[in-house]
Amino acid sequence: MTDDTDIRLCRTFQTAPAAVPKEDSAKYLRSGLTAAGFQAPDWLVPDLEDGTAPDMKAEGLENTLDLVPDHDFTGEIWPRVEWSYEDETYREKGREQIDRLVSEIGDEIDGVVVPKVGRLEDVRRATEAVAEAEQAHGYADNSIGLSIIVETGCARSDLREIARFGEESRLTALVFGPVDYTAELGGRDLGDGRPRWDGLLEALSNEASAAGLLAIGGPFDDLFTERAGLTFYNADAYADQVEHEARLGLDGSWSLYPKQTIQANTVHMPTPDELERDVDKIERFNAAKREGTGAVTLNGQMVDEATFKNFVNTVQTVRTIDETRPAQTTDYYDAELLERALGLELAYR
Amino acid sequence: MTDDTDIRLCRTFQTAPAAVPKEDSAKYLRSGLTAAGFQAPDWLVPDLEDGTAPDMKAEGLENTLDLVPDHDFTGEIWPRVEWSYEDETYREKGREQIDRLVSEIGDEIDGVVVPKVGRLEDVRRATEAVAEAEQAHGYADNSIGLSIIVETGCARSDLREIARFGEESRLTALVFGPVDYTAELGGRDLGDGRPRWDGLLEALSNEASAAGLLAIGGPFDDLFTERAGLTFYNADAYADQVEHEARLGLDGSWSLYPKQTIQANTVHMPTPDELERDVDKIERFNAAKREGTGAVTLNGQMVDEATFKNFVNTVQTVRTIDETRPAQTTDYYDAELLERALGLELAYR
Amino acid sequence: MTDDTDIRLCRTFQTAPAAVPKEDSAKYLRSGLTAAGFQAPDWLVPDLEDGTAPDMKAEGLENTLDLVPDHDFTGEIWPRVEWSYEDETYREKGREQIDRLVSEIGDEIDGVVVPKVGRLEDVRRATEAVAEAEQAHGYADNSIGLSIIVETGCARSDLREIARFGEESRLTALVFGPVDYTAELGGRDLGDGRPRWDGLLEALSNEASAAGLLAIGGPFDDLFTERAGLTFYNADAYADQVEHEARLGLDGSWSLYPKQTIQANTVHMPTPDELERDVDKIERFNAAKREGTGAVTLNGQMVDEATFKNFVNTVQTVRTIDETRPAQTTDYYDAELLERALGLELAYR
Repeated sequence: MTDDTDIRLCRTFQTAPAAVPKEDSAKYLRSGLTAAGFQAPDWLVPDLEDGTAPDMKAEGLENTLDLVPDHDFTGEIWPRVEWSYEDETYREKGREQIDRLVSEIGDEIDGVVVPKVGRLEDVRRATEAVAEAEQAHGYADNSIGLSIIVETGCARSDLREIARFGEESRLTALVFGPVDYTAELGGRDLGDGRPRWDGLLEALSNEASAAGLLAIGGPFDDLFTERAGLTFYNADAYADQVEHEARLGLDGSWSLYPKQTIQANTVHMPTPDELERDVDKIERFNAAKREGTGAVTLNGQMVDEATFKNFVNTVQTVRTIDETRPAQTTDYYDAELLERALGLELAYR
Repeated sequence: MTDDTDIRLCRTFQTAPAAVPKEDSAKYLRSGLTAAGFQAPDWLVPDLEDGTAPDMKAEGLENTLDLVPDHDFTGEIWPRVEWSYEDETYREKGREQIDRLVSEIGDEIDGVVVPKVGRLEDVRRATEAVAEAEQAHGYADNSIGLSIIVETGCARSDLREIARFGEESRLTALVFGPVDYTAELGGRDLGDGRPRWDGLLEALSNEASAAGLLAIGGPFDDLFTERAGLTFYNADAYADQVEHEARLGLDGSWSLYPKQTIQANTVHMPTPDELERDVDKIERFNAAKREGTGAVTLNGQMVDEATFKNFVNTVQTVRTIDETRPAQTTDYYDAELLERALGLELAYR
Repeated sequence: MTDDTDIRLCRTFQTAPAAVPKEDSAKYLRSGLTAAGFQAPDWLVPDLEDGTAPDMKAEGLENTLDLVPDHDFTGEIWPRVEWSYEDETYREKGREQIDRLVSEIGDEIDGVVVPKVGRLEDVRRATEAVAEAEQAHGYADNSIGLSIIVETGCARSDLREIARFGEESRLTALVFGPVDYTAELGGRDLGDGRPRWDGLLEALSNEASAAGLLAIGGPFDDLFTERAGLTFYNADAYADQVEHEARLGLDGSWSLYPKQTIQANTVHMPTPDELERDVDKIERFNAAKREGTGAVTLNGQMVDEATFKNFVNTVQTVRTIDETRPAQTTDYYDAELLERALGLELAYR
């Protein structure tokens, strides 16, 4: 994350069930497509898989094909299809869904999300399914992306190999799926929640970085909590998870709900304090270098070229968000600070 | 762990020194073979390796050969033999022990446990030692299992490759050996115990799941603790370790002592609250699906097919224990709850 | 770490900028070369890379070439050169620096430290750069070592393969570089510091042990802290980091500052309590074995051959330090305890 041109924004990966048993079966999908301000996700994921019931899936696909072209969504659109490394039936359904999506709205989507992949061979198979649809409907090679949910023991075991394969393929994001993953491993919730799977998160962040892919955290499903008789939105626990993911270098987090989208969008932007701190250190380090110093102590921290790169990340992230969602940066940062961040000299050699 | 037929029970891997310098040198082995109720381990491991002193090993082997056929132990029997990836002398001893065990009590044992394995090549070598004994004494291919102790830097380094090899071999369980492992890495106990090696535990759980093997935690050797002048059994610290292992999806824990066996057997059963909670959510989710909903909020948690699998794990574990150790399930669960768990519809498609 | 002859001491890996914009541009290098007592690092690393500003690097190289032969430093000397897996310009600079160092002070240095390596191929490339300098200037094969900084996603991804390659090469130490690493992964400091990267540290310790290499922790750059108006050396936080590394079996820690060197040297020696405890347990376990017991309970802990190895590590580390830095052991341990540790029988078979 050291080059402006490299940053692809996916602070929020928001899934929306493509069909629900309500009068307007596309209610949540429509809501995602029209969300504004901090409620607008960077990626919207119309969900044809676990979020939509088996007998609503056909309707979910039609909803997606109908609604996406009708809306001018400013982020990316990535429908999630069905798949399973251990069941050909689901792969066949997935292939048909991919074919319909590419055929009818191939210009409107950025790629498809394939869940429950297994070892490298299965990821190759998913890649081929996308390539076939692309060819069949006259799209250029690699114009339709592929993101995968890492949620099986096999995918975790092959993560390094999958990511390396991804360097030269249409693979775009590695997304964690903790619920299926915990079930596969037989993990237990003894009353204090599922494990965080810190080893997996660290590997996801590393392999994604090494291969130039995005790394995205998993859903947080304890949407509501209860205290003193009142049930309310579980804002603290979700923010804790997203902050943990941000510390480890994940590029974004999964959102199931508009309030989660506000929080994930916000956490994955540098805070005003962070931006002020890093802009300040960049300015002072640049001044020190003009006097011939390689390492300098700023506010008690020893700063050198390596530390400097972390400050540069902060500023470049703000610049990318400012290009895509200027309303958010203007809203979040003091005008003078934002101007300093946009105008700062980052070349340090 | 999503298919009834797949669950092989090893909540407890209890080692018993095969010979000790007491009047009855088989005291601990005999005690393991006759243990009842929650004190009976799922696997009993007559220990010919580190638990038995060098000059008692011959007697330990004779004790094992004599006592095992005399007792009708309801769990599995897995003697631990000598081995070392870095010393042929110990491998030769191990081969002789395996040969004697298969030759004389091959029908009574489920497999052998081989410690201190190194890289994949060494695990292959251990596999061949078992295959040779099997052939020499007329046993069917793969009728004698192999479990290994992961306790060297080399075995940890090759864990993925060893587990993949295990998919198509007699390999049954990957068992952690933290004491040797810490010594190999030069880990330190600065007064608050050895490291937990969380990265290794997570990898063990993952690779075992991906390859269809069992993952078992390591021994806890601080058997006793002292406070206010009294020395007593260290129940809390052991339960903490076993609960940590259960959260991460390890199938069982190592026991050195009958009280540890009670605790590990118990922690690796769903608690009555957990069972009640998950039975309840299965019933409510099934009802929601009958009305066409793919995801539903139950007690503040968003539940879909993925979450559902975790609840199914809980019920299937109870069913497997009920088949093998009905006295334990009857003792632990309310009769009505147990009946609901045994009768529940789990198919969700 | 179970054989006296295997222990290579690197409790402290102290970098010193090779040139700074002061009247004496070699001030910090000179200070490292002349440090005494607990301030003397086991390894001194004249830093031609990030610690020295771009326009001082030529002077830094001259300082290193001039000062190293002039001082009789009792530890090892490992200059850090420039390098980058993603930029040939830096590799070319690195090759020239290596060539000058080997050519002019090849007898005085133990090896070179190469930063920012990528995948295995890049580590091979660094190895070849050292081999070429060796050949060109008539040094024996493998007489000049190579240590690498693990600070890129690619190096972490290939860590196992790099370490295995290192078994049969001049590779000596794997050193963590958390600042660059965090920047590469896009990790965030949300006000409570960078992540510790525990998964990486555990893997570093394991792969180094499996391949017979040293594992060294990364720098701690929050040198100073502030409370109640006073700015002071951040002794607690650094000691916490070094103790964490010691628990995980890292052989040594990075120091940026003489006070850090005192602390890292000290933490990576067994404490007097630890030494007393382990010497005592060795004596008692040896006595128990003479009576035919394989496992025995000492102070509530069950002790067998595996536990024993951990106690032996403690004693062997003290013996190695005593050979290299007798002033430190004499200063740190009670004379009687030290004598017991040096005279103890460690062979346990």
